Amino acid sequence: MSFRIEHDTMGEVQVPADKYWGAQTERSRNNFKIGPEGSMPKEIIHAFGYLKKAAAQANHELGVLSADKASLIAKACDEIIAGKLDDQFPLVIWQTGSGTQSNMNGNEVIANRAHVINGGALTDEQKVLHPNDDVNKSQSSNDTYPTAMHIAAYKLTAENTIPGLEKLRNTLARKVAEFAHITKTGRTHFMDATPLTLGQEFSGYVQQIDNSIRAIKNSLVMVAELALGGTAVGTGLNTPQGYDVLVAKKIADLTGLPFVTAPNKFEALAAHDAMVELSGALKRTAVSLMKIANDVRMLSSGPRCGIGEIIIPDNEPGSSIMPGKVNPTQPEAMTMVCAQVMGNDVAVAIGGATGHFELNVFKPLIAANVLQSARLIGDACISFNDKCAEGILANEPEIKKHLQNSLMLVTALNPHVGYENAAKIAKKAHKENKTLKEAAVELGLLTNEQFDAWVKPEDMVGSLK
Amino acid sequence: MSFRIEHDTMGEVQVPADKYWGAQTERSRNNFKIGPEGSMPKEIIHAFGYLKKAAAQANHELGVLSADKASLIAKACDEIIAGKLDDQFPLVIWQTGSGTQSNMNGNEVIANRAHVINGGALTDEQKVLHPNDDVNKSQSSNDTYPTAMHIAAYKLTAENTIPGLEKLRNTLARKVAEFAHITKTGRTHFMDATPLTLGQEFSGYVQQIDNSIRAIKNSLVMVAELALGGTAVGTGLNTPQGYDVLVAKKIADLTGLPFVTAPNKFEALAAHDAMVELSGALKRTAVSLMKIANDVRMLSSGPRCGIGEIIIPDNEPGSSIMPGKVNPTQPEAMTMVCAQVMGNDVAVAIGGATGHFELNVFKPLIAANVLQSARLIGDACISFNDKCAEGILANEPEIKKHLQNSLMLVTALNPHVGYENAAKIAKKAHKENKTLKEAAVELGLLTNEQFDAWVKPEDMVGSLK
Amino acid sequence: MSFRIEHDTMGEVQVPADKYWGAQTERSRNNFKIGPEGSMPKEIIHAFGYLKKAAAQANHELGVLSADKASLIAKACDEIIAGKLDDQFPLVIWQTGSGTQSNMNGNEVIANRAHVINGGALTDEQKVLHPNDDVNKSQSSNDTYPTAMHIAAYKLTAENTIPGLEKLRNTLARKVAEFAHITKTGRTHFMDATPLTLGQEFSGYVQQIDNSIRAIKNSLVMVAELALGGTAVGTGLNTPQGYDVLVAKKIADLTGLPFVTAPNKFEALAAHDAMVELSGALKRTAVSLMKIANDVRMLSSGPRCGIGEIIIPDNEPGSSIMPGKVNPTQPEAMTMVCAQVMGNDVAVAIGGATGHFELNVFKPLIAANVLQSARLIGDACISFNDKCAEGILANEPEIKKHLQNSLMLVTALNPHVGYENAAKIAKKAHKENKTLKEAAVELGLLTNEQFDAWVKPEDMVGSLK
Amino acid sequence: MSFRIEHDTMGEVQVPADKYWGAQTERSRNNFKIGPEGSMPKEIIHAFGYLKKAAAQANHELGVLSADKASLIAKACDEIIAGKLDDQFPLVIWQTGSGTQSNMNGNEVIANRAHVINGGALTDEQKVLHPNDDVNKSQSSNDTYPTAMHIAAYKLTAENTIPGLEKLRNTLARKVAEFAHITKTGRTHFMDATPLTLGQEFSGYVQQIDNSIRAIKNSLVMVAELALGGTAVGTGLNTPQGYDVLVAKKIADLTGLPFVTAPNKFEALAAHDAMVELSGALKRTAVSLMKIANDVRMLSSGPRCGIGEIIIPDNEPGSSIMPGKVNPTQPEAMTMVCAQVMGNDVAVAIGGATGHFELNVFKPLIAANVLQSARLIGDACISFNDKCAEGILANEPEIKKHLQNSLMLVTALNPHVGYENAAKIAKKAHKENKTLKEAAVELGLLTNEQFDAWVKPEDMVGSLK
Repeated sequence: MSFRIEHDTMGEVQVPADKYWGAQTERSRNNFKIGPEGSMPKEIIHAFGYLKKAAAQANHELGVLSADKASLIAKACDEIIAGKLDDQFPLVIWQTGSGTQSNMNGNEVIANRAHVINGGALTDEQKVLHPNDDVNKSQSSNDTYPTAMHIAAYKLTAENTIPGLEKLRNTLARKVAEFAHITKTGRTHFMDATPLTLGQEFSGYVQQIDNSIRAIKNSLVMVAELALGGTAVGTGLNTPQGYDVLVAKKIADLTGLPFVTAPNKFEALAAHDAMVELSGALKRTAVSLMKIANDVRMLSSGPRCGIGEIIIPDNEPGSSIMPGKVNPTQPEAMTMVCAQVMGNDVAVAIGGATGHFELNVFKPLIAANVLQSARLIGDACISFNDKCAEGILANEPEIKKHLQNSLMLVTALNPHVGYENAAKIAKKAHKENKTLKEAAVELGLLTNEQFDAWVKPEDMVGSLK
Repeated sequence: MSFRIEHDTMGEVQVPADKYWGAQTERSRNNFKIGPEGSMPKEIIHAFGYLKKAAAQANHELGVLSADKASLIAKACDEIIAGKLDDQFPLVIWQTGSGTQSNMNGNEVIANRAHVINGGALTDEQKVLHPNDDVNKSQSSNDTYPTAMHIAAYKLTAENTIPGLEKLRNTLARKVAEFAHITKTGRTHFMDATPLTLGQEFSGYVQQIDNSIRAIKNSLVMVAELALGGTAVGTGLNTPQGYDVLVAKKIADLTGLPFVTAPNKFEALAAHDAMVELSGALKRTAVSLMKIANDVRMLSSGPRCGIGEIIIPDNEPGSSIMPGKVNPTQPEAMTMVCAQVMGNDVAVAIGGATGHFELNVFKPLIAANVLQSARLIGDACISFNDKCAEGILANEPEIKKHLQNSLMLVTALNPHVGYENAAKIAKKAHKENKTLKEAAVELGLLTNEQFDAWVKPEDMVGSLK
Repeated sequence: MSFRIEHDTMGEVQVPADKYWGAQTERSRNNFKIGPEGSMPKEIIHAFGYLKKAAAQANHELGVLSADKASLIAKACDEIIAGKLDDQFPLVIWQTGSGTQSNMNGNEVIANRAHVINGGALTDEQKVLHPNDDVNKSQSSNDTYPTAMHIAAYKLTAENTIPGLEKLRNTLARKVAEFAHITKTGRTHFMDATPLTLGQEFSGYVQQIDNSIRAIKNSLVMVAELALGGTAVGTGLNTPQGYDVLVAKKIADLTGLPFVTAPNKFEALAAHDAMVELSGALKRTAVSLMKIANDVRMLSSGPRCGIGEIIIPDNEPGSSIMPGKVNPTQPEAMTMVCAQVMGNDVAVAIGGATGHFELNVFKPLIAANVLQSARLIGDACISFNDKCAEGILANEPEIKKHLQNSLMLVTALNPHVGYENAAKIAKKAHKENKTLKEAAVELGLLTNEQFDAWVKPEDMVGSLK
Repeated sequence: MSFRIEHDTMGEVQVPADKYWGAQTERSRNNFKIGPEGSMPKEIIHAFGYLKKAAAQANHELGVLSADKASLIAKACDEIIAGKLDDQFPLVIWQTGSGTQSNMNGNEVIANRAHVINGGALTDEQKVLHPNDDVNKSQSSNDTYPTAMHIAAYKLTAENTIPGLEKLRNTLARKVAEFAHITKTGRTHFMDATPLTLGQEFSGYVQQIDNSIRAIKNSLVMVAELALGGTAVGTGLNTPQGYDVLVAKKIADLTGLPFVTAPNKFEALAAHDAMVELSGALKRTAVSLMKIANDVRMLSSGPRCGIGEIIIPDNEPGSSIMPGKVNPTQPEAMTMVCAQVMGNDVAVAIGGATGHFELNVFKPLIAANVLQSARLIGDACISFNDKCAEGILANEPEIKKHLQNSLMLVTALNPHVGYENAAKIAKKAHKENKTLKEAAVELGLLTNEQFDAWVKPEDMVGSLK
């Protein structure tokens, strides 16, 4: 491999000749060989594209950066946003906790790429832009990295997580209507209970997802607040007047998302509570999805020795040894995703709680976990929706068989014979393996006609939606 | 000990003669000897007082319960609410996951206590009220227990957690003003950084608490929704028309809190996402408080070998062996509370995720953990406020010494000499143990006069609040 | 209430006249009103009894404490160990993170109680013992509190947790033998799979508990190491030569448990990794128990619409509204306990990771959580064993029905017709709702006789234990 | 892209023409688009190489597979082990919870690659090996995937995690000796305390790592047990006699690691407690490392306004805005890794606790998290060692200054003047900003000579190692 020499304030560094990155990126590559290379999330890299472009525009507008420089920076940023320079970002999550090295990676790549766009060569002694003085102007890693975190997290959540949840929610809502007429046995404590409709059962899932989306949106209000303009410790040192508000507006314009400047920059650098809160909302969503996926897994169990009340699509052979076996693989992927999100939430909380003074230095950890959680939930919802939920069918014969057998239909008799007599009926039926009607009549508590009039499963499912 | 005989649908049970509880409570006492007796949170017991009273009123108003019975139930409930019957609730958290046995504990105590209020004796064969048919009318454990969870959690959060947070927040806000004029060295990565004011540093804490309160309030909107009216599986079986809306209104009236009936009862029984979400908001608050408490601990460290920039009250001798030692005990209590809340959140999430079909059976676990978290945060904030935050003083001599020494004042020179030259100045000063001014002038990069004009710590703290 | 005046190095304090505690305990009571009073675990209090007695004996033996004083201390300690002075320990978990105040609570109660035992009065100006100079001699809170943690944790684990696990393990092992002959359908992915015996299924549970016990015992080796002798920072300042080894031996003698002095006292004060490790072993045990309890819950589900392959004891009425309902309440209590232990483990890990320099100041948090986990697992195992596991019966008719229906018996044909042909048979049977034999023969892949010879569920359960 | 047609029991599938994988892999690719492609850990893929080779050898030795087939399988496996076929494994973690699809990915790639090695073409209708009947012979995904988990986890832990820990441990042990003579102030509660040597402080770190390694090795004993031979549900259906023991021996021979067959295959398929336990040991290690890294970060803080008692290497410019700033970036990377491992442990525990009946279906989640934790700890230890720990120097002037100032030297006076008088001295010195000696003499409690004789920091550090 051939190299060129780059330098920073610590001296000279050999850098691969064909790469746009500079001395500080290369130092970080060598200093942090932890886990696979390039693990810093691509969403963060792209967010830096928006951020650096917006900063250049704001700097120009406020008179501290020339039009030419701002324009060159913007061109390089557009390539970053488009994903064309992804291979220029080799750094890992496990670097400095401020993400400084990824900020500098961005500054260096932009400065060098802009120089080349401008007709220069990577080996030129003098470059058209300085990574710190120009590309990083009015910025510090301490405000850029958390800004990139918020841009990336908001964007991914808005464009992947919420749409995924909504797609699944809408499919399940269609099932509510589709299954509205199917009365089935309820199950509480995993034991037979009073009836409800299959549609009602699914309506609970819809409500869970609706509430999850609401929680995520609540947390996004905080994520919309950007640290940019706080620079090193939150005071805004070395920024022109009005910069923080303007640069947030620029980012909002570029992304089409409702970003604003954070009301308190000290909080925005020293804490990442907004990300902790978003992680909590994603965890709460994972809790909902795990319940739903488990229900689907268990309701579809069998085919002959399980609950078997719904049928889910057969997507692939389920076993390498058991021929013809089909498994609820989408619920399995979903529940694994949920467990991951629950674990990630703990990592984020620990990172969030462990900042000191003016800076939280668990930034890349927090970013990586929140972004993974957001991505996994969004993707898993689409997968679960497309390959499972849309194809769910009611297994009506099995549902009917269970419903007719259920001893808990006896609950309908409470108002007529009292809880204690109703219990006698149920116990007798269970013990003697009889129907409820047989037991009730044998006990002399009511007549066949009364039983038929009072115990109508369809009437027991109420009017609650 | 003397006993009387009580019975339920399974037969007869010996119960301590002087206790109001009945057969099912006694069975549970014997069946679940797990951890200390009576661990079911008192907040849940009192919430059942409100709930059972409201249910009796609603049942009466809707014509399914006589005025006499409703009135008797209300009288017994008033005693429960007042805490007079706390010793009648001996059950533990670790019982059935639906909390059925605590619901029955309530039903039995109310029925028996009402009977005695009415002039009867505990040994009377026939009682004026039946625990199931009267006290539990239009109810199931499956909707009462989650309703009690929400009542207890909302009440405790509104009356203890949020006021505690607000008290601390207001004290810290006063410190912001008090410390507004004190410029100090910033610290990022635990290393010297550019200056800010001590007031600015504290303003970040205020913002963190404000955001935490906001998150808690967001989650309370969900907690305000009550399951009551769903009965066994969410269908509202055996409830009169309009009951769910009316009973929620009654509870709102009795508690003065904005409870409403849950829009989907299936979700409200089968999932406890609202509690999971509240737990998440409390965890997010714990994350904030841990940052704040750690900063206070570290800023006050010393007295001679630490950071020592603030002084906190001396509350007690700090060591059993080191004479005269004083320690940051309030921050320590606070950070332990925060760790507990973060752990509780995991327990709640696991419980929340593991419901099946029509019922989540981790209810008492979820309730106990959320209530403990809410209680601990509220109490710890008051303690931290009263015994620590209110007495925080700035150690101005130490602050001044640090500020003058800090090499990061060099950052003010970036716009004048560029990042790289500024770095040369800082490095030279560090290496040769000189002042920045000496280093700068020796390097010939600027004059004494320029240094004095450009490097003014007071001017570096900006205009951001 | 009447008071007496006590003093410490900070001055005078009013203390309830009839209490043995002194000034520092009273300060802590007033300074830390967080959660319910007296929450410091009783196991810790009793452990201080052993510790202070052992220290007095060692101090005497090494010539730094008179025989009279040592004897008086021992007498008061015996009362603490016997639980007679439990009401003299009003402090909470949420105090200083070193537990200094509970150490001083012990010192004060012992000094004052010994004074009274010796014939003095609580109001005497001069006491026979000084809490610091005598009772705390050769000690610091920094080494006593972690020693008390280890004594309490080892004792509780050895006397409650492990015996509870062993009792349950032995019951399940009996079931392995009892169910050895019952062939049933296996279930993987919650779907029908190849057969095994019910005994084999239960043998997995036994192995899980065996492995859990092994893990707990491994971690106890570390818990057996005591910090005592390190005093303030681990150097053993103010201790006589040989004290650390001797005092550990004394504690071992008093408790009958294999305690030894820690090889490195700096680690033993600054970190509580041994407790973190024990918590991890308890968490791992909770993971095992949750699997077992869930299986029992699900295998016993029904009675008519579930899996229903085992029958568990009916312990109490399961529902306040559904007459005759019985629920798997012991598995529910167990799984709630498991979720709690998993949450506690996170709290312990956070506390364990957040020590600084010479002292971890999350000691009471760590102690309280580990002790709760150990207690809950031990108690829950006994409860689950006595009220559920011992009474588990096989529901052989249901088991037989499932086994005969299972399409996965087809796996036995793989060696004869190949995986792909076997799949064809299973799919045909499933689709056309036929038996495997019918499908196989219709496909012309084998004869009735071959099927009967090759597909024998009893032969498919192998010889693996 | 060009395709070829592959088939499985569900029918035909288009597969990229140049890929070795078959129908089932391709189905999974399409059915699980969750997160980035190819996320199934490479360590698992390579472990399948060992496993499939060992199984082929055992099958041949036991007479159920021809020598030719076994040899062909082994050749393809050798390529997998060498990493040459990594790009043939495109599947993700978030697939079926049994890992069946990755097992089939292995079976298909081996079958097809072997066919090509044997001179065939991918498009040949008839292949020399069948993925199920030959490559998967005597196996099920249910026993192969957990076996691959154990092989991968043991190997990575033994070859990366433990060596990394040992390297760091040995460096720190060298520092213990190097710093043995440097007496410094201790710090408890982040406050000045009695002295110890810097070597003693570091000895605590060495002990922590020693104990962590011990815990990891304890857990590896369980990870050494392999599920292979249990096939579908643990019974060993379709395996030749003696297979389980033999195949474990083959794997041990191929890897050079002490693998044995699991004593109970039902447990080995249905639970992954061994992995949960390993994860717990890694979490416990993370707790240790977080303490160590935090101490290093804080001890090196400054350079002028912090603790500043040690000096760590300057590896890179620390700030994009603050010139000359250097940060403790290696401790930051380490603490982020630790937070991740603590979060992963929760994900693993949830997955481990949520298995049902004969199979845990959170296998890929568990594998991915444990492997990431093991990898990160190993890598981070090397990085922290090479770029930080090895270069740690004592800042003796600063240490000396702190030591001389520390008021806690007064503790040496306890045996001479008693705790209370010693407290008076310390308090007076603190209040009046004097030296201890001045205060002591002014109080008339001792003479200058006595002070000098009794308060010798070097004598206060004891003889404990």
